[in-house]
Amino acid sequence: MSVLVVGSIALDTIETPFGSVHDALGGSATYIATAASYFVNPIRIVGVVGGDFPLRGLEFLEQRKIDLDGLEVIENGKTFRWTGKYHYDLNIRDTLRTELNVFEKFDPKIPERYRKSTCVCLGNIDPVLQKRVLDQIDNPRLVICDTMNYWIEGKNRELRETLKHINVLIVNDSEARLLSSEPNLIKAARVIRSMGPSIVIIKKGEHGALLLTEEMVFSAPAYPMENIFDPTGAGDSFAGGFAGWLVRTGDVSEENLKRAVIYGSTLASFCVEKFSVEGLSDLTYLQIQDRFREFREFSRFDEEVNTRTIPHTV
Amino acid sequence: MSVLVVGSIALDTIETPFGSVHDALGGSATYIATAASYFVNPIRIVGVVGGDFPLRGLEFLEQRKIDLDGLEVIENGKTFRWTGKYHYDLNIRDTLRTELNVFEKFDPKIPERYRKSTCVCLGNIDPVLQKRVLDQIDNPRLVICDTMNYWIEGKNRELRETLKHINVLIVNDSEARLLSSEPNLIKAARVIRSMGPSIVIIKKGEHGALLLTEEMVFSAPAYPMENIFDPTGAGDSFAGGFAGWLVRTGDVSEENLKRAVIYGSTLASFCVEKFSVEGLSDLTYLQIQDRFREFREFSRFDEEVNTRTIPHTV
Repeated sequence: MSVLVVGSIALDTIETPFGSVHDALGGSATYIATAASYFVNPIRIVGVVGGDFPLRGLEFLEQRKIDLDGLEVIENGKTFRWTGKYHYDLNIRDTLRTELNVFEKFDPKIPERYRKSTCVCLGNIDPVLQKRVLDQIDNPRLVICDTMNYWIEGKNRELRETLKHINVLIVNDSEARLLSSEPNLIKAARVIRSMGPSIVIIKKGEHGALLLTEEMVFSAPAYPMENIFDPTGAGDSFAGGFAGWLVRTGDVSEENLKRAVIYGSTLASFCVEKFSVEGLSDLTYLQIQDRFREFREFSRFDEEVNTRTIPHTV
Repeated sequence: MSVLVVGSIALDTIETPFGSVHDALGGSATYIATAASYFVNPIRIVGVVGGDFPLRGLEFLEQRKIDLDGLEVIENGKTFRWTGKYHYDLNIRDTLRTELNVFEKFDPKIPERYRKSTCVCLGNIDPVLQKRVLDQIDNPRLVICDTMNYWIEGKNRELRETLKHINVLIVNDSEARLLSSEPNLIKAARVIRSMGPSIVIIKKGEHGALLLTEEMVFSAPAYPMENIFDPTGAGDSFAGGFAGWLVRTGDVSEENLKRAVIYGSTLASFCVEKFSVEGLSDLTYLQIQDRFREFREFSRFDEEVNTRTIPHTV
């Protein structure tokens, strides 16, 4: 199995109550590919940067064994930049500035040797571009897609068309409600599944995630984080960890989809512990496995077998 | 072990997108006692109603084997009434009218034979009254307490005093944040624990609940409800199921606290399926046990043991 990631590659300037960074490596493709690279490699990336993209950015991606042949560098252009500020309550963020730069005219061209990729991860970009990517791939076996309110509202028809070709849609709770016009998340997922994706994942930030298929609802807990430094990239790290685990194991059974959600949550939890991609820069197998087990530990409960305690007064 | 419940007994008029009820049985003590009655009985209740309190209300409570000797009836007064409206998104509710009536001067008098109750459940009432209840009990072994933003803001000093005598505080996420001045829920629970309660439960509505002790964080899933008819009383049913299970088993080990949270969630999930207390009127042992197991089923995941799938590329 081979993984192709298409999305933004950005330089982020981020302010949080705990510090700030300037022109740090960011973007959906960056986080997805980095998180997935802990499970399979090389990961193929298609994106665009300007001539100002720093060498350290390229070195970071290469160190994670990410295949950069699909990275377009527009020498006389500037890299996409995002400036945001998180408040003391890290659930609230303000976008202070978005400079699309070379990303404005991004038209993903999939290199010939990427066209047989078996898994395609579509970061949160224009659904028209997402569809154009898929048109260039020969029979992908697994297509994972992210989107956002901006496209749900602004390009609904185009998004609906793209969704017909998606296997797994990963959205957050407000996006699921907006896309489905249904406040109940279980019903919302059913509506979204009727649009195409057979698997819907609803991320709920500090509240964990829901995985919904035709047969199953799985409620994944969130890691009880006390020290979130920078929430940027958490959702993309989730998608990358999820995709990476599925591709690594080649197993899309329900039990393994659940594990993939926990591995996605695991990578997201590491991501938010440091600024930018720092939290994903240097993980070990043991750290990932230990955190996976922690997720089990704090969500596990057993039924008591001692019959003394069975309620007999009912 | 014997359980004393003190709180409001009300007649609720509720409108939801799915229908409406007028003067239906409600109030925190009603829901707590009813839910707890599935695990232990009799449950002792202390509250106040007016001469207009309907016979069917008394019959309902008696049928659940709730001991009504502590129920004060003020013949020439009117019962506390609450009128509320839920929107299509059931997370949003408007209080249309609150008529305190006899509840305005409620001053809980604990009957002599209730004073050795081992477990006291304090519904969401003025923290001054909560403290006055505790002053009348000889060495309760387990004190469980609910509160709300109104008291956190309006009677903060009095609430802090009451909290010193509480073992388990059950609040929702916004209340936890307000009480602790801390947006991170894990940190918020630690702040609240420093105020007195050694166990903090944070209810998160459709996102489940957190149970936090000195040693443990437990993340309980929410039941994936598709058809919520009336969310009124969900939090009180949770408290009642939680208390009932703990008292029934006489076991406050961490493993059993987790089970109690799931039994609380189970009773809450039944509560919201029908209007008023209807959802709690006629449950069977098998229904409760089956739903407990469903909670396990949709939150359970396993680690794969097949070493083929252990990520070796990290």
